[in-house]
Amino acid sequence: MPVTDFQLIIVGGGPAGLTAGLYAARARLNVVLLEKGAAGGQVMNTDWIENYPGFPEGITGLDLAEKFAAQAERFGLITKLCEVKSMDLAGPVKKIFLEGGETLTSQAVILATGARPNQLGIPGEKELTGKGVSYCATCDGPFYRGLEIAVIGGGDTAIQEAVHLTKFATRVIVIHRRDELRASKHLQEKAFANDKIEFIWDTVVTEVIGSKEVEGLRLQNVQSEEEAILAVKGCFVLVGIRPNMETLPLEQLDNDDGFIITDKEMRTSQPGVMAAGDICSKNVRQIVNATGEGAVACLAAENYLSSLN
Amino acid sequence: MPVTDFQLIIVGGGPAGLTAGLYAARARLNVVLLEKGAAGGQVMNTDWIENYPGFPEGITGLDLAEKFAAQAERFGLITKLCEVKSMDLAGPVKKIFLEGGETLTSQAVILATGARPNQLGIPGEKELTGKGVSYCATCDGPFYRGLEIAVIGGGDTAIQEAVHLTKFATRVIVIHRRDELRASKHLQEKAFANDKIEFIWDTVVTEVIGSKEVEGLRLQNVQSEEEAILAVKGCFVLVGIRPNMETLPLEQLDNDDGFIITDKEMRTSQPGVMAAGDICSKNVRQIVNATGEGAVACLAAENYLSSLN
Repeated sequence: MPVTDFQLIIVGGGPAGLTAGLYAARARLNVVLLEKGAAGGQVMNTDWIENYPGFPEGITGLDLAEKFAAQAERFGLITKLCEVKSMDLAGPVKKIFLEGGETLTSQAVILATGARPNQLGIPGEKELTGKGVSYCATCDGPFYRGLEIAVIGGGDTAIQEAVHLTKFATRVIVIHRRDELRASKHLQEKAFANDKIEFIWDTVVTEVIGSKEVEGLRLQNVQSEEEAILAVKGCFVLVGIRPNMETLPLEQLDNDDGFIITDKEMRTSQPGVMAAGDICSKNVRQIVNATGEGAVACLAAENYLSSLN
Repeated sequence: MPVTDFQLIIVGGGPAGLTAGLYAARARLNVVLLEKGAAGGQVMNTDWIENYPGFPEGITGLDLAEKFAAQAERFGLITKLCEVKSMDLAGPVKKIFLEGGETLTSQAVILATGARPNQLGIPGEKELTGKGVSYCATCDGPFYRGLEIAVIGGGDTAIQEAVHLTKFATRVIVIHRRDELRASKHLQEKAFANDKIEFIWDTVVTEVIGSKEVEGLRLQNVQSEEEAILAVKGCFVLVGIRPNMETLPLEQLDNDDGFIITDKEMRTSQPGVMAAGDICSKNVRQIVNATGEGAVACLAAENYLSSLN
């Protein structure tokens, strides 16, 4: 077996990567986790989490991320702060090329680079994220009981979540830049039949208005260019999700537009390479299944390493 | 759509069932969770848990189970304490028959009945579980750093875990009732080559000895019937795991010796029936992936319910 720096390299320090790291450190693998910012991933930017089991009163994203990191560190996980430039994952020696010229090698790799929701890129959006601007209806819907909210988008996810959100909100206004939806006919029919859902067509949002919380949206009709203000307490931006795939050698991995395809053991098409969390091709992207996949990926890595010698 | 008592019935109140319940209650489904004992499942009997992410200092099984249950209840999950007798899961109306004659109906079902490790059924085993007797090397191995321990069993799991446990223990004694292992040749070779592993053949354990913690094992040679005492601090019983399948209509569900086969969305072969946690056919049975599967199963149930109307 060729000599490598590590048995296992984990790329990404969100819930999936940190759980893989916790399991790997407990199993005493020679492992390192690579993270470019602070450990925790997208969770860090999540204001309040109610659906990660174990915290009946809820927990801030920052606190949960710190707990994940502290737990893995307690068992000896080393985190290296660095930027990955590219990777070569084919063959028995996996190579991770870092910005600055350093190259790390390992026998196995777990990819946990995550994904990010597409943003509108308009004033107020970033400032009010977690304060009325949300990218996840499953996570944040229950916070809007009895309120009026907007959903931005026209695809399957946007329309499905608009219907879902009527369980909480008194009124859901779907804002779409075209005059018809991309969502499936079945979903469209459900949405059109729902009294609580209204549509504003041919319209884009140009600003999220509010000082401490979302108070409204500035709208612009793309045909007439007329402007209007819509008063809402919440705004779900559901215009797609992008994989953090920029450093991944996609030509070496079966993938679905950059989302990595795995089997149930979280193995990719490349022997010795596992993936876990939001970077995977799947339907459900929640903290609780990212952590689960991290553990499964680590045990698959252990089995792979065990098969080598 | 026929009228049913519930949209969703969840069978089993361990980590998988309670997480499915948390998600279902947050999504405001008309849902009930059925549990025969106290909610929490096997976790309740786990002394100390270090590998469920979010608790850097560790947590008792009882505390974690209570947190899972409290969180689901906070969002309105109703738990019905009852014993399930049998089920009919074919067709659009799922029927759950309870002991005492009551029948509950629903459109969708999540099976989360769990599994249980096979026990030896010898004196001291039950009393010292969590106090030196363990059924999970991944979970409890790190507690035995620098100690001498026994592994009971001769199959793949027993031998793989014996090798794994040498990362912690100074000496691992494998006790097997036959004179050769059932484990794969590859695993056998690794174990035989490992200096820290010793074997005691043709031998059964007849008693776990210890007052507050495991102090030793009483052994009996099955050929000579000679008895002996082995002084060890820990004892891993790895003689297989059994699905809690007694109430399941296995003729209606693809399964692998009673373990339910699902796809990646946790859907079984029966439309409207999902499964999550240890009852599933899979390689990794940990709390963290049971919870993840519970969430995924709930979202699959929501999608199924949504397709009905």
